[in-house]
Amino acid sequence: MAKDSFVEIAQKAKTAAKKATTLTTKTKNFALLNIVQKLEANKNRIFDANQKDLNAAQKLLSSGEISQALFNRLKLDENKMRDMIQGVKDIAQLDDPIGKVLLKRELDEGLILTKVSCPIGVLGIIFEARPDVITQICALAIKSSNAVILKGGKESINTNRMIMSVIQEALDLTESFPKNMLNQVFSRDDVNEMLKQDKYIDLIIPRGGNNLVKFIKENTKIPVLGHADGICHIFVDKFADYEKAEKIIIDSKTQYPSACNSVETLIIHNEFKYKDKLIKHIQNSGVEVRFTPESWHKEYSDKILACKFVNSLEEAIEHINNFSSGHTEAIITEDTINAQIFMDSVDSAGVYHNVSTRFADGFRYGFGAEVGISTNKTHARGPVGLEGLTIYKYNIQGNGNIVKDYVEGIKTFKHKDLF
Amino acid sequence: MAKDSFVEIAQKAKTAAKKATTLTTKTKNFALLNIVQKLEANKNRIFDANQKDLNAAQKLLSSGEISQALFNRLKLDENKMRDMIQGVKDIAQLDDPIGKVLLKRELDEGLILTKVSCPIGVLGIIFEARPDVITQICALAIKSSNAVILKGGKESINTNRMIMSVIQEALDLTESFPKNMLNQVFSRDDVNEMLKQDKYIDLIIPRGGNNLVKFIKENTKIPVLGHADGICHIFVDKFADYEKAEKIIIDSKTQYPSACNSVETLIIHNEFKYKDKLIKHIQNSGVEVRFTPESWHKEYSDKILACKFVNSLEEAIEHINNFSSGHTEAIITEDTINAQIFMDSVDSAGVYHNVSTRFADGFRYGFGAEVGISTNKTHARGPVGLEGLTIYKYNIQGNGNIVKDYVEGIKTFKHKDLF
Repeated sequence: MAKDSFVEIAQKAKTAAKKATTLTTKTKNFALLNIVQKLEANKNRIFDANQKDLNAAQKLLSSGEISQALFNRLKLDENKMRDMIQGVKDIAQLDDPIGKVLLKRELDEGLILTKVSCPIGVLGIIFEARPDVITQICALAIKSSNAVILKGGKESINTNRMIMSVIQEALDLTESFPKNMLNQVFSRDDVNEMLKQDKYIDLIIPRGGNNLVKFIKENTKIPVLGHADGICHIFVDKFADYEKAEKIIIDSKTQYPSACNSVETLIIHNEFKYKDKLIKHIQNSGVEVRFTPESWHKEYSDKILACKFVNSLEEAIEHINNFSSGHTEAIITEDTINAQIFMDSVDSAGVYHNVSTRFADGFRYGFGAEVGISTNKTHARGPVGLEGLTIYKYNIQGNGNIVKDYVEGIKTFKHKDLF
Repeated sequence: MAKDSFVEIAQKAKTAAKKATTLTTKTKNFALLNIVQKLEANKNRIFDANQKDLNAAQKLLSSGEISQALFNRLKLDENKMRDMIQGVKDIAQLDDPIGKVLLKRELDEGLILTKVSCPIGVLGIIFEARPDVITQICALAIKSSNAVILKGGKESINTNRMIMSVIQEALDLTESFPKNMLNQVFSRDDVNEMLKQDKYIDLIIPRGGNNLVKFIKENTKIPVLGHADGICHIFVDKFADYEKAEKIIIDSKTQYPSACNSVETLIIHNEFKYKDKLIKHIQNSGVEVRFTPESWHKEYSDKILACKFVNSLEEAIEHINNFSSGHTEAIITEDTINAQIFMDSVDSAGVYHNVSTRFADGFRYGFGAEVGISTNKTHARGPVGLEGLTIYKYNIQGNGNIVKDYVEGIKTFKHKDLF
């Protein structure tokens, strides 16, 4: 059988997405539980495929073409496999995000408006090395009744192929599950094609480095959900508690320095009494502190922290709103009024008081799973779970009602909320 | 004083938007009521300005450069002025869409996550001739705490300038209302500049013809909310009630043929007994019925209706999902199962049963006002009122909480919803 072109894949995905709008919760959860079983039964085939990727990656690691960190992310061990399978079980347990009645209003007697959640359609998802991501995204797509076209990192190609084939086996066993809901493409050319298919693809979600996300945002008319930079700030107010400040800053910077929710810039009020001690203790924890203005623009993703002193809360807020990437920022203070001003005035997806920036995460928020973190100002912001993969439609149920009657004043609207 | 460049206007709007995040409901409503007073007190100045536009338009009308319909939309009479002022009063009465708690969750003891609605930032709004639109958009922007940059049609330039200057007088009287919240630009070059300013403008809403909306969507990286085509369908099922079908089709086509929610294509089940009578009656109401496949792609905005016969509900749904612009579609049937299949399977912003497509409208839905109708699959779909001009942020309130404790298993999340 000849291989489908990207456009053919996208067309078939669109057809599948249309069929998926009538999928029942029962069918979707049954599909997810079939996936759990099939993954468990085929662990060794997946490990073998992963070993092939690791063998190829080992050579790239030796020649310095990939980092140890990427190699580690690529490796699928028993623990990651267990978490990956548990993730699918968890998503089966979550409420169905589709078919929720968001508004029910009697426009007039016998004329009922209902706003009901529905899937977006076809999602294009582009992600880098971690092969466990593919399972999570497929499970989220199934639960939210969206079709997906996935393009994973080339380093994990064998693992991704095997996982998708196991998942597809599970779906083939699921009665009345549409064909072509989950699709995978492999080449850079496919990414370029994906960005052009605004007729078939409704939303693109890139998960990966800065350059990938920027490239995608600049080269498509399709809405893109995600974040490029993660330049998070912590402001230590004049009224900060020293112990909390130290603990939160060190957690935010060192707990996982390459995460997008790690702090990159520390802003300290000049009148904070313990500022010298604070900086010394941060440095003692193995963090390099930089005081040059150039550092304010940078996402180090490493144990490096930019630092700036300010004379007021307002100056701190202004700096953050100018330099932040809109991801997550925190204030450390015992003054509740200052905290409230900060929370109201800082324009980011997450704005925290006396808390580490590392809490910005779908699992920690209790969403069960996430497709990524958005710094967009429309559709979905912050960690995006199932809800961010839905939109809504308006249904009206009537009995021959016409607008002429209302325009001519023969009838008038009631607008009585029933829900 | 030198005139600001577009970039300077956009920068100042962004600064205003940041200040606006802390506007209270009281201040916003006070501003709206000041606008009501000022509009009432300055009616004659606005009518005079409108007369200037009408004089210029009269020449264009005589030479055939503009249509009678455009001329009529341009004219601001006592009735339109009254409705325009009432519209501002109505928006003052609506609930504040900002600061709403959408989720409140105890992540752990003393660690509270709150999802709270907030403004989007700076809206770029491009609209055609109707000068009463400007007041409605300014009122919606104020109530939703967004800054706006407005570009109206050149035909109404004098009216728009005068209305904005009266509104600005009212805002100058409103204590603690930020400067530069409402901005107006006038030239085509300004539109081109607007489309480039993704650093300062968060959302563009075009209100106008097909070509305007398509041009904007193809020439900006900023999210665009709106609709280009409005190709709405009505499907007359085998089990349709004849009286309802006739009444609904004639209302949907003739009540206001140039509206985007007017029906453009009629699909009739071949086994519908009264199909010949139905077509004859539609023709007798002054509507031209066309049976060629070319007509299925067209938005006539006139008393012309494309027509197709199908052999099944499924064929009708497939045709609609292929040819529709995703605006509004209706089924006429007495069969509730067929109605439900249609409502679930048709992928449009509005899907109706036994109701005229002309109901697709923010006022008729009870939203009080609308900035437009969206056929997007993300952010907001269908008639967009205040809610579509908001996004949310996540706040976390803690007391020195760090992620390390949860990663290392010292603490575990509770995830208990408080709201």
